[in-house]
Amino acid sequence: MIDIAVIGCGPAGLSAAINAWARNKSVIVFGNKIDTGALYKAKKIDNHLGMPNESGKDMMEKFLAHALNLNIEIKNGRVLQILSMGKYFVINFENEFFNAKTVIIAVGITKTKKIPGEEKFLGNGVSYCATCDGMFYKNKSVAVVADSVEAESDVRFLSGICKNVIYLPMYDLKENFPANVEIIHGKPNEILGDDSIKALKIDNREIVCDGIFFINENTPVDNIIFGLELNGSIIKVNCLCETNLPGVFAAGDCTGWPFQLSKAIGQGQVAAQNAAKFIDSMKQ
Amino acid sequence: MIDIAVIGCGPAGLSAAINAWARNKSVIVFGNKIDTGALYKAKKIDNHLGMPNESGKDMMEKFLAHALNLNIEIKNGRVLQILSMGKYFVINFENEFFNAKTVIIAVGITKTKKIPGEEKFLGNGVSYCATCDGMFYKNKSVAVVADSVEAESDVRFLSGICKNVIYLPMYDLKENFPANVEIIHGKPNEILGDDSIKALKIDNREIVCDGIFFINENTPVDNIIFGLELNGSIIKVNCLCETNLPGVFAAGDCTGWPFQLSKAIGQGQVAAQNAAKFIDSMKQ
Repeated sequence: MIDIAVIGCGPAGLSAAINAWARNKSVIVFGNKIDTGALYKAKKIDNHLGMPNESGKDMMEKFLAHALNLNIEIKNGRVLQILSMGKYFVINFENEFFNAKTVIIAVGITKTKKIPGEEKFLGNGVSYCATCDGMFYKNKSVAVVADSVEAESDVRFLSGICKNVIYLPMYDLKENFPANVEIIHGKPNEILGDDSIKALKIDNREIVCDGIFFINENTPVDNIIFGLELNGSIIKVNCLCETNLPGVFAAGDCTGWPFQLSKAIGQGQVAAQNAAKFIDSMKQ
Repeated sequence: MIDIAVIGCGPAGLSAAINAWARNKSVIVFGNKIDTGALYKAKKIDNHLGMPNESGKDMMEKFLAHALNLNIEIKNGRVLQILSMGKYFVINFENEFFNAKTVIIAVGITKTKKIPGEEKFLGNGVSYCATCDGMFYKNKSVAVVADSVEAESDVRFLSGICKNVIYLPMYDLKENFPANVEIIHGKPNEILGDDSIKALKIDNREIVCDGIFFINENTPVDNIIFGLELNGSIIKVNCLCETNLPGVFAAGDCTGWPFQLSKAIGQGQVAAQNAAKFIDSMKQ
């Protein structure tokens, strides 16, 4: 059982991790590689006190080094789901399962917008996880909409199970795929169907399929954890970074304006200190 | 007219200042020298992301250098009072007056506890400012209770006006004083009197005097600004660092637990970004 599971490997997540360490709590950070975040691409930041005039890349590398030098475990990949088990949480990380007493969500801003029908067919034709749900589509037709190269192994996996795969890469495609994978370029607009999915509308074409996988680098946070109170795509927290779910904290850009570095690092600290307090109060 | 007046020169105050600069707002920081703060004395801090394993002194020096390199004006000394004038604030800094559109309070934790009678006689025998109120005690007897060497110039000033000065230094005394200054060591317990002050009780002695000056490095924040909502000695703020007074923000330790560096720097950023937003909305 981990004391504190941190979801997200940006400034807020790493700050939470080193503060968990400082409070002598066990911690694992689950998140994307640091070069995928917005900060990494920033040319210069000069409003984070004590680190003047640095590039985002240099900063993120210092942040990561700080955590790694404290021997904090970081697992790069996607958290697919978090389930509350009452007194603890189960984290599905790439279909490897971890138990944790508390969770700190620090996933940044997820820009993914849902398309009409996506919500309606979620769990009934729409999936965010090929390895979780691929087998339901054995010998069937599926579409995969993906925003990064990471999805290509999912496409290959699905092409081995399904009759055919329609692949919509929303990035510059590099690889070749098996014969039953058809590449289509365009904008997915709507999911059509009644009781089950009939087709995916791409621009003005209707592509017949039985299931649709949306594979995004950042899954919208309300698809990961059930019952989390949001305001639009922003997680509602109080000043102590507590969400509406006991034991679940949030920090950084995912908690809203201002979307700034010092604020993220500060909230990471507050979330971890408060999670540590929460764990200590459980013991009594 | 300054856009943003920052009260306090610790991590929260300096973070607020560089963020005011980043938002292109004029800013002056009023506060004690950095070597007076708690952080400066910390041997090692390892839970502030990106700055591993540094001493408090090294950190504070980097923080100050960051602000000074951006040509941010810092005035070392005591803010004696802040008055709201409706649409702006007047800051009495060592009896020099500054106007500001917004105020960010980042004064850290003030440990000063009041003694019985102090509140009752405030403004009627009790004062926190020798240069403001000294002349009211011409040819009278006053007591001065002080927690740092900075008060000695006040004692010398009062000894030139008053009949006699009873001085209670709560620190190691270094200097000699004029003949009408009597040094007493002990703990001030209570202020005695009916309509006006009759005596200061020190341990079990009653020392007759007409006025009492409490000269502390950090004046309790509710003595500086009227109407600020507190919870004990903690300033009540929301997640955007807003106090109950429009245009007055607070950041860092003075806003409560956790009393930690990253949190202070993060709140300084939030307060400044929000103060900038407040100023921009005033224009409309």
